[in-house]
Amino acid sequence: MTPRYQGIVPPMVTPLLASDTLDLRGLERLVERLISGGVSGIFALGTTGEAPSLSYRLRRELVTHTCRLAAGRVPVLVGITDTSLVESQSLARHAADSGADAVVVAAPYYFPAGQPELHEFLEELLRDLPLPLMLYNMPSLTKTSFSGDLITWALSQQKIIGLKDSSGDLVYFRRMRRLAAAERPDWSFLVGPEELLAESVLLGGHGGVNGGANLNPELYVSLYQAARDGDLPRTRELSARVMDLSESIYHVGRHGSAIIKGLKCSLSLLGVCEDFMAAPFHRFHEAEREIIRARLVQLGLIK
Amino acid sequence: MTPRYQGIVPPMVTPLLASDTLDLRGLERLVERLISGGVSGIFALGTTGEAPSLSYRLRRELVTHTCRLAAGRVPVLVGITDTSLVESQSLARHAADSGADAVVVAAPYYFPAGQPELHEFLEELLRDLPLPLMLYNMPSLTKTSFSGDLITWALSQQKIIGLKDSSGDLVYFRRMRRLAAAERPDWSFLVGPEELLAESVLLGGHGGVNGGANLNPELYVSLYQAARDGDLPRTRELSARVMDLSESIYHVGRHGSAIIKGLKCSLSLLGVCEDFMAAPFHRFHEAEREIIRARLVQLGLIK
Amino acid sequence: MTPRYQGIVPPMVTPLLASDTLDLRGLERLVERLISGGVSGIFALGTTGEAPSLSYRLRRELVTHTCRLAAGRVPVLVGITDTSLVESQSLARHAADSGADAVVVAAPYYFPAGQPELHEFLEELLRDLPLPLMLYNMPSLTKTSFSGDLITWALSQQKIIGLKDSSGDLVYFRRMRRLAAAERPDWSFLVGPEELLAESVLLGGHGGVNGGANLNPELYVSLYQAARDGDLPRTRELSARVMDLSESIYHVGRHGSAIIKGLKCSLSLLGVCEDFMAAPFHRFHEAEREIIRARLVQLGLIK
Amino acid sequence: MTPRYQGIVPPMVTPLLASDTLDLRGLERLVERLISGGVSGIFALGTTGEAPSLSYRLRRELVTHTCRLAAGRVPVLVGITDTSLVESQSLARHAADSGADAVVVAAPYYFPAGQPELHEFLEELLRDLPLPLMLYNMPSLTKTSFSGDLITWALSQQKIIGLKDSSGDLVYFRRMRRLAAAERPDWSFLVGPEELLAESVLLGGHGGVNGGANLNPELYVSLYQAARDGDLPRTRELSARVMDLSESIYHVGRHGSAIIKGLKCSLSLLGVCEDFMAAPFHRFHEAEREIIRARLVQLGLIK
Repeated sequence: MTPRYQGIVPPMVTPLLASDTLDLRGLERLVERLISGGVSGIFALGTTGEAPSLSYRLRRELVTHTCRLAAGRVPVLVGITDTSLVESQSLARHAADSGADAVVVAAPYYFPAGQPELHEFLEELLRDLPLPLMLYNMPSLTKTSFSGDLITWALSQQKIIGLKDSSGDLVYFRRMRRLAAAERPDWSFLVGPEELLAESVLLGGHGGVNGGANLNPELYVSLYQAARDGDLPRTRELSARVMDLSESIYHVGRHGSAIIKGLKCSLSLLGVCEDFMAAPFHRFHEAEREIIRARLVQLGLIK
Repeated sequence: MTPRYQGIVPPMVTPLLASDTLDLRGLERLVERLISGGVSGIFALGTTGEAPSLSYRLRRELVTHTCRLAAGRVPVLVGITDTSLVESQSLARHAADSGADAVVVAAPYYFPAGQPELHEFLEELLRDLPLPLMLYNMPSLTKTSFSGDLITWALSQQKIIGLKDSSGDLVYFRRMRRLAAAERPDWSFLVGPEELLAESVLLGGHGGVNGGANLNPELYVSLYQAARDGDLPRTRELSARVMDLSESIYHVGRHGSAIIKGLKCSLSLLGVCEDFMAAPFHRFHEAEREIIRARLVQLGLIK
Repeated sequence: MTPRYQGIVPPMVTPLLASDTLDLRGLERLVERLISGGVSGIFALGTTGEAPSLSYRLRRELVTHTCRLAAGRVPVLVGITDTSLVESQSLARHAADSGADAVVVAAPYYFPAGQPELHEFLEELLRDLPLPLMLYNMPSLTKTSFSGDLITWALSQQKIIGLKDSSGDLVYFRRMRRLAAAERPDWSFLVGPEELLAESVLLGGHGGVNGGANLNPELYVSLYQAARDGDLPRTRELSARVMDLSESIYHVGRHGSAIIKGLKCSLSLLGVCEDFMAAPFHRFHEAEREIIRARLVQLGLIK
Repeated sequence: MTPRYQGIVPPMVTPLLASDTLDLRGLERLVERLISGGVSGIFALGTTGEAPSLSYRLRRELVTHTCRLAAGRVPVLVGITDTSLVESQSLARHAADSGADAVVVAAPYYFPAGQPELHEFLEELLRDLPLPLMLYNMPSLTKTSFSGDLITWALSQQKIIGLKDSSGDLVYFRRMRRLAAAERPDWSFLVGPEELLAESVLLGGHGGVNGGANLNPELYVSLYQAARDGDLPRTRELSARVMDLSESIYHVGRHGSAIIKGLKCSLSLLGVCEDFMAAPFHRFHEAEREIIRARLVQLGLIK
């Protein structure tokens, strides 16, 4: 039994032309870019995909097209995180109908639920869930974390197949992975922050859900492979390049949105897709765009 | 020019029979209870109304029926807070079509937006908004607060008509009210936590959006009037009774959800509506229900 | 049985000439200013007094001189908050030897203690404590709050005589006061944030430990009296003047230290004492000093 | 130029017989245990050493004896973190007089200082500081972090020689290390949480200040060496053993103090030193002590 997902599963940005309007050509180019870059799957409708900012109509449209474009070459995972269980369930059915491989859920993020309440929530979600479920730990945005006791219970649920951890807390990541080690060798433990990809895989993690892989999938795939193979010199070199990208692109804006803005701006400069952002955010102004352009040149991503 | 809303505007609980199923009979009894209790308006789809936990279909259904049942006797305010601007706009149009008086919006609550981003978000929302807008400050759940600078800008927007503040921070409340004093005497400043209703109105606030008014609207209306009229002995007495209710009913459960659970359980015991809760929460078990029953007897609300 | 302290007990700033050097003349003028302004006591070595930033030697020197200068005209309360119980105990003995009336303690503030640990800490502190003890709730700086259960226990300790609450959370303040109402009518409930003095006293609080009273003790004393006497028009007027002072003086700097810097700068401009600040802070630069000067003119405190 | 400190520098627990009473025999055994275990230095008066809970007299006594006992075999680093600069300076002089090698300082931890204020604080501290200074990033307890800009400035100060990072945030650790890479190859970057020792050293960190090294210094030293040498299989094996120790010993109590209590209890069971804890904490009760004993047997540390 090996983990279902190993390697890089990028949290795909959602290409938009305008408010509530998908950039379908951009999406096509982006999906091809990711697959030809060697990714192990595509995670649609995550945080980097601005999922909570999109209308339900557009979320469905995105899922339909992503599954069609991936065409079975790599699995598609669909984020169904929501504050309303009914909407999560509905989106999960749509994902199944579209041919997605699994769904991904973080804690409901308006009311911070207690652990027993999270437990009941997951039980209710699992009932009739048409696809396997990956948990998504994202405490900075959901105001709560999946506790060790909850993960222990989750290990007993065959439909739950892994954990994506975006807490940035590798101690948590390791503690959860240890809980699963004996019982569920098929669970995938994927790390969110790309700056921790090398470390987590060297110590036994299975890969990353890293935003920067939208921009340079080959880099992240190579880093994953080097770390998995225990090639330390190459891991250090590639990990330094990931840090270069992160330091260059993610801190141009002042707010938390700077990461997604930087990614979309970069993809636009690379000719992949538009950089329109869903409210409450807006694309970078020209000044910031020029900074990003200069940095992409430094990174060797554009000339 | 006087504030559009003065007095008690209860954040109405959403009576449910089951998942995604409105308790229409319960809603009817609840609306009558509130109106006959003397409230100055009804706020549907707020935090107490579990709005983020409801499907969009049910949110629309609730708005339609609430407006129909209120029948112009009191204004209906509709919460359109969401993480997706498109969905907020859509719900605002439905509220207008249903005859609501205004809409209410808190900050988008997944990504914590910076103040300039909140500003742009509000500007975009105001464009084509079919109803007046009340701001809703709820930092513990939205992870951000409307800054003084943002409120100063909001005062220049005729379509924005007030602030509901649920921060629990009366210093913030007073600071914002002072900003508006000269420029916008028509703004309504309403306080969320009922334990602060007396204090805020004595010092010039215009009323409260208090969950407990679902249970005992007369009490909150009387307290508002006493404080507005500067009748201190009566204000102290009624405010102590509000504290009695709050202490009795809101702390039976352990998690943040205890307030809404306590309210719904009480309304169920009073025969007003069902106590089904939307996921991720569940109604109280029998043991907690018996505690609530005993406390309602002590409060004189049931025999 | 009436509360031991009622009225305004200013958290006295600590006048300094230079690092580790008391401004003794300034202290003398300040103590006279407070007493002639009608305060009900002086609280030395609180947060506003920069206590944690002072050497132990200087803390002792300050206590000695403050008690000597007050000369029994008003009680002196001495803050003994520390991370080391041994140092708190030692300072308490010095306070008793100097003639202080009571000591004041917040939770130890490096390690955030659990409630049972706070309980044990207070038990250990009470043993051999030579003076009555007032609790000081300051969660933003100590990372913990005294829970209702802990306050309930504290009510059973005759040596504990009240609570100063600087949480800014009037709901907490009211809940704690209700716990004491029947059992300990002698407890003093004093509120920290001056912007909440009016509200808290109108609803039954006993006074304030308000930094602004260093600057204008008469104003705060008058506001306290008006609120205590239920004179609402005068309470509103004086409370608005306190808001004027707060808005004018406390937000000139960008960091949390702005309040103490503003107070000390103002006292210096009034000729009361030097504005030297203990590390890690520094007095305002000339530009900020000029802003403060202009605002003191507007407030009518200087010509 | 190589970093001054590489390897394991344990944050030594402070053996106590009773309140304000050093366990001198225990200290002697502990120092020998650490040195014979191969540590690269001893860090006295850190968080694990309960420094803020100790009287100044005892802190001085501990420094004197630790330096005497180490007798130049390994360098002694002395924590001078305090809320009062005067006390920090005084302790630094005592450390120099006692023969310590360097001092270590975290941000003053009562008032949360802004970055410019922290900058001024460090400048003032450096003036006349008799020993080299290592920065200590501990945001969970000091409420602030050293920003990248501040670290950039610190790199220009020859007297500052490194950073101990206990944030648990390896992204921060890597970002700061990158800042120093070109300019100050002599800086030491040491990581606090032992669960991250392997990861940080594999990617270029210089060692750890890990509490568990009090208990089993050889294990941590071996792990450090394996990671430094790029021996991945051994790193994984030893890192798993560190996780075993951490999971076994640090979570027996419910509060944040559980780690130090677990360490002291273990050392007591091993016959190294007493487990008396400074207020506000207390040693484990018998039930918890038995749990720890059983786990030490499982870990092979006692029979």
